[in-house]
Formats: sequence, structure tokens, C-alpha cells
Amino acid sequence: MVSAEPLDRATVERIVREIVAHTVRSGGAAPVAAAPSLVVSISARHCHLSDEHVEILFGPGRTLTPMKDLYQDGFYAAEETVMVVGPRRRMLPNVRVLGPSRSYSQVELAFTDSISLGIDAPVRHSGDIEGTPGCVLVGPAGVVELSQGVIRAARHVHMSHRDAAGYGVKNKDLMDLRVESPGCSILFEDLLVRADDTSKLEVHLDTDEGNACHLDAALKIELLPKKGGSCGCQGGKH
Amino acid sequence: MVSAEPLDRATVERIVREIVAHTVRSGGAAPVAAAPSLVVSISARHCHLSDEHVEILFGPGRTLTPMKDLYQDGFYAAEETVMVVGPRRRMLPNVRVLGPSRSYSQVELAFTDSISLGIDAPVRHSGDIEGTPGCVLVGPAGVVELSQGVIRAARHVHMSHRDAAGYGVKNKDLMDLRVESPGCSILFEDLLVRADDTSKLEVHLDTDEGNACHLDAALKIELLPKKGGSCGCQGGKH
Repeated sequence: MVSAEPLDRATVERIVREIVAHTVRSGGAAPVAAAPSLVVSISARHCHLSDEHVEILFGPGRTLTPMKDLYQDGFYAAEETVMVVGPRRRMLPNVRVLGPSRSYSQVELAFTDSISLGIDAPVRHSGDIEGTPGCVLVGPAGVVELSQGVIRAARHVHMSHRDAAGYGVKNKDLMDLRVESPGCSILFEDLLVRADDTSKLEVHLDTDEGNACHLDAALKIELLPKKGGSCGCQGGKH
Repeated sequence: MVSAEPLDRATVERIVREIVAHTVRSGGAAPVAAAPSLVVSISARHCHLSDEHVEILFGPGRTLTPMKDLYQDGFYAAEETVMVVGPRRRMLPNVRVLGPSRSYSQVELAFTDSISLGIDAPVRHSGDIEGTPGCVLVGPAGVVELSQGVIRAARHVHMSHRDAAGYGVKNKDLMDLRVESPGCSILFEDLLVRADDTSKLEVHLDTDEGNACHLDAALKIELLPKKGGSCGCQGGKH
């Protein structure tokens, strides 16, 4: 790794702790019969890399090395990390790379991270990076300048088409997620359904969202049909 | 200020930026006729000090020096800051003191701050500090060890009794706050009403909550009667 400005111990420890995303499983009843167990995962800041960029950053012929499997089959946190550098030499020193590699590189930050970096990262869904800000990635073997690809990942829920049918939704619909925590309950709107044949049911929030509702202390978690507006309910029990 | 471990530039800049709390005003119509304009303020991490602790930290005979008035009359951000030190030498170097002084000292952090400090700060309302964790405060003239008083301030709304009557609520009731932002709208539950004769209408969120809903980008902000549960509505238009 190249040299960097010194970091205080708290920052280093926080970064280390945040690298491995953590997960909360809900035992609460979902609003449909025979609903599967709901998993809510906090995605800490991370990046996805193209094969070309893996070789530039980590060396010719190098590929990503799986370190820890993620909840979705086939995906993993890699051993590799990169430094993400923003304007005016602000940087995040150890941003985890997630595998497998993709056809494009993308950096996913929480809003707090983007403030820290000085990058105005828009809320976007993965892959929707046209016109987003860029940054510089620094690895042990080289440097990549991304012209775009820095986003705040929009909250979303992975599921199979079968699960989607159970919830009465389909791919690209929006749902709500209610997290009941002592003194800080939140209803997250705008949760995008990403349904395909094979995904396991899993909500992805970022660290700001997880902290705002103190997810680790949650008493009840519910995935709900989108209500919209102030409530959107049409009356009746629901 | 005493010496400390070095900080990276990004951390220093972030801290400076967060010191002065920022405020968003809603032009959206509130759900009652003739409702007052709604102000939502982000409380960055800060502390309140007793007169005794001001003198220990800043010198005999010293009192707080107002630097910037807060929205509520009579309250201000002081020129003074303290270092807040947690376990294992983790620390936050420049935590703003808010005035006027109080009968007890209290440190209010966002959850992200408390993770960074290594302190398990519970969600509490201001003043409700019995049994909460302590910390060490370091000022230019001395050190104070607090045996308790580190909290994550619970979200709340200040208002006059007159405003409360307009919303159909009273002191200590709970309300909901809906923030509509592109791609990251949130309904915050558990918003405590703090009504008295003189307060101006103002919601206080912490930085995690403000970041989770990207408050600065909000399109619409609504203060709503508590719905409770998944929705709690009894049908009908609302």
C-alpha cells in the first residue's frame, strides 16, 4: 500500500470494524402467510472492480481473492482493499473490494463517507452510474482514475420471483421496510425490489440507515407493501 | 488544547464542518390548518456543561462565550470545545459546547460517533442520563471524568403549547416525521413532543438520521400525528 497521511487510532479501528458487513435476522412475522425469514444486511462502504482495474491496482494477472462469503450465493468480500481518494487529497484508506469482478468499476459509500471524502455522491441503484462523480483508486500496484461510478447505493431488497409473488410485488417495484427499535423506529420507503430466479431474501441498507434506526437493537423488522405518501393506506385493517 | 494523536485531513475537515448544526426549513403544508412553518435541525455531536465543569475545563472564573445563536431563543453554540475521550484512548477532539450551562453535564452523540468512541450510548431524552455511560472530558485548563451522561439524543420536536394544540398533541406525546427525499424517503417514528410556553417549532434529528434521509435534499417534510405499528391508521383520508 502506498503511504498516506497518518490516521488516528479511532478512525483506523472504526474502518476495520466496518469492513465486514454485518447482518440482522428478523424473527418477526412477515405480513404474508408462509413468508420466508427476513435478513437485513448493512453494506459498509465498498467497491466493485472490472478485471482490467484489478490488474492495474493489484498487478498483472492478478484476480480477486475471496475472504468471506456474503449472504447471496457466489458473492464475497475479497482480501483486496483500495484507497479511495477524493478532491483535495481527502481519502478513505481501506475500502473493501467485493467479488466477483464486474464489467465496470463502482464505489458505494454511505452519505457520511461521501461528506468525509468531499464527493457529492447521488443516491443510485447499482449499475446506474451514468453522470455520477468519479474518484481515484489507489492499490499496491497502481492507480485508476474513475471518471464516474461513485454512488450512495439506494436501499433495496433482493428476492426470488417466488418470494416476490408471496409479497404481491414484482421486480423493480418499491416496498417499505419498518424497523422497530427502542426510541428510534423508522419506516424506510423507496426500497427497490430486485427479484430474479435465484436470489435469497435480503434487504441491503447502508451504514447511515442502519445507525439511524440502531438496527442491531431492533425488536421487530417488517417488509411491507409500499404505502406511499403520508401513509397511502386506503382504510381497513392492514 | 492538550496534544492528541494525529488526525487525517478528512477527519479534521469533517469535524469542522459538523460543528455548526445546520437547519432545513420546510415550505410544505403541515397537516393542520394555519400550521406554522416547520424547521428541522440536525444536532451535530455536542455537550452541555455545569458551571463547575466549565471552570475545571476552561479555568477558574470562566464562563461560556456565545459564538452563534441557536434557533431556540436563549440557546447558543459556545466558542468552547472539549475533547471527549472514551475507552482505549479513542477520542473525539473538538466537541462543541452548547450554552447556557446546566445543572449537570451531558454529551450527545450520533450513533456513528459512539461507535467511533467505543461507547455504547443509549437512546435517551436530554436529562434522562441515569445509568448511562460516562467518559472523560479534556479542556485546555483541566480534565473532568463523567460517571454518566453520554447519550444518543432521541429525536424530538420543540413547540409551544399553542402549536401542540394545533397538531392535536400535548407535551410528551409521540409524533411521526416524514421526510421525502429522492430515493431515500423516511418516516421517523418516536418523535417526542417537548412543549412549553415559549419554544419555537423545531424538530431535532442527529447526523445519522439527517444523513439517512439526505435531509438537505428533502422535497417535502411533514410532522404527523403518530400512526403507530405498521401504519396505525383507522381508515379514511389523512
